[in-house]
Amino acid sequence: MAQRGEFQIIERYFTHETFGAWKSKGVGDDCAIIDLPAGRIAVTCDMMAIGTHFLPNARPEDVGYKALAVNLSDLAAAGAVPRAFFLSIALPERDDAWLAGFTRGLMELSVQSQCPLLGGDTTRTAQVGEAHAPVTISITAMGDLPQQMGLTRSGARPGDDIWVSGTVGGAYAALMHRWGKWTLPPEYFASAAERMDRPQARNALGTALLASATACADISDGLAQDLGHILERSDVSADVLWDNVPVHPALAALAQPQRIEAAMTGGDDYELVFTAPADKRGLIEQAAISSLTNVARIGTIVPKSPEDDVRLTICDARGEVLCLPKSGFDHFAES
Amino acid sequence: MAQRGEFQIIERYFTHETFGAWKSKGVGDDCAIIDLPAGRIAVTCDMMAIGTHFLPNARPEDVGYKALAVNLSDLAAAGAVPRAFFLSIALPERDDAWLAGFTRGLMELSVQSQCPLLGGDTTRTAQVGEAHAPVTISITAMGDLPQQMGLTRSGARPGDDIWVSGTVGGAYAALMHRWGKWTLPPEYFASAAERMDRPQARNALGTALLASATACADISDGLAQDLGHILERSDVSADVLWDNVPVHPALAALAQPQRIEAAMTGGDDYELVFTAPADKRGLIEQAAISSLTNVARIGTIVPKSPEDDVRLTICDARGEVLCLPKSGFDHFAES
Repeated sequence: MAQRGEFQIIERYFTHETFGAWKSKGVGDDCAIIDLPAGRIAVTCDMMAIGTHFLPNARPEDVGYKALAVNLSDLAAAGAVPRAFFLSIALPERDDAWLAGFTRGLMELSVQSQCPLLGGDTTRTAQVGEAHAPVTISITAMGDLPQQMGLTRSGARPGDDIWVSGTVGGAYAALMHRWGKWTLPPEYFASAAERMDRPQARNALGTALLASATACADISDGLAQDLGHILERSDVSADVLWDNVPVHPALAALAQPQRIEAAMTGGDDYELVFTAPADKRGLIEQAAISSLTNVARIGTIVPKSPEDDVRLTICDARGEVLCLPKSGFDHFAES
Repeated sequence: MAQRGEFQIIERYFTHETFGAWKSKGVGDDCAIIDLPAGRIAVTCDMMAIGTHFLPNARPEDVGYKALAVNLSDLAAAGAVPRAFFLSIALPERDDAWLAGFTRGLMELSVQSQCPLLGGDTTRTAQVGEAHAPVTISITAMGDLPQQMGLTRSGARPGDDIWVSGTVGGAYAALMHRWGKWTLPPEYFASAAERMDRPQARNALGTALLASATACADISDGLAQDLGHILERSDVSADVLWDNVPVHPALAALAQPQRIEAAMTGGDDYELVFTAPADKRGLIEQAAISSLTNVARIGTIVPKSPEDDVRLTICDARGEVLCLPKSGFDHFAES
């Protein structure tokens, strides 16, 4: 869930040579993939604050569920099977009703995904003048990977197909509706809100892709931005056909520019975007069937010209290039 | 660094049966000890907020150093060798000077302990009215343990000696001085402040104790409280001889009641308190020598009467029972 300014902070301050007995590829992917002396694991770490990642009035059940779901989604992007998580939570004051709801949502997904809570910490944040600091939640989740395997953002090659699981844009459309900027009809809003409040991490698909995908990321920041991370880490460009992008059904209620904004730049869908050679299409379709997850082929990886930056081109069926709205929200970007 | 109210929250909301493929002893110790299919690891998770765990004007270098040190100390209490850590940090605003200092202190200890940063997350906290929310830091650290081994709080048996490493009370005395409640002479204050700002995790000692100690905890909440955790988890009581408690040299500047308060209830020392059978004294002294860490024998584990709560009795050399000041600060305690 990092925005551009956050990547700048991570790159500038928190990217260092690794050393020591456990080998890892280091910072910059959805997960760290670590080789212990006797086995490979994936580890991810997400921090969320009420007011930043959750609306101030979000139901505590949904906060608990989603806080774990976004971490499971990072493990899915690595192809790892979730095995355990750790929770740290900073509370401005003790609120038992909130905590009980939060725990209900959290443990619902914990049991459902067979990923137990194995430790953690609670702390109280100091008051800021008269006001309370927001609840801040940090989860570290860990999973198993087979020896030598694990998906990262860096393996996409020219000629690879680009795939997306499920549908995109639903969570963002629900957020815009809640902010009062867009209006969805009630029946559309309910299914979009479900996407925003109860994201489904694609762990079964991620695991099934281990043998066929060349690169993978989960869609937390928006399809364009997360595919962009794959392009940057793989040093390639991409052509995407807008008409093939699987948009959430609720987007039918929106005008075309809003539909593009939601599907391409809206975050919080927690689908997977991944690449694979064209001769692996049969395997990808098999993985989709075995994991009960729809996948759509939306484009092709192309070479990057050495003197240019990586480029993501999105065309409609008539071959016209679509312009994306400027990606909105970036907490830490240097302007 | 959990206080009593925090333990209540953890017990009530975050203690669940474990399940799934990775076996662990579950929540309630300094570390989770986890058996992966092919090896044993220890994992710990600490969350810290400026204004709660750090003074508002703490040097960013010290914040970075200590944030990692307290996690290494949890690994030390389990006897684990630190191997990797993950950092999540919530910032109210981007402050490059602060981040640069924080990273300097953090990486100083990371390199020194050969424990690399392998991943993490940054996020921005929402403003609270006009005010900024405090910086909140969450670190998850992981380490190696030999198969079948690992220290917990739950193995102390009647007849065991009680040991403490290093000295206690220095960090608390420095805090009281900084709060203006006590006054230390400058030469005493400097060494006490070093204890508060740059705690030294006892990983070499912890590892060396694996074969001899029956229970172990690090002293984050105060010697009385952390020894109390061992007593509760082991279902035993303890007699401690005050005169044998190794107090920090700066405590010589204080009156006896303050000295007792600092040494027995002051937190933040990050020494180890551990128990071992009397016939292991030779091994303990060897472990102290090999890890270049002083240890002191301060008392004995005694049986708990079945109808009573666990009991910690502290006597002076004349056999008089000392009264401890009520443990001060507990964010979440139900009164």
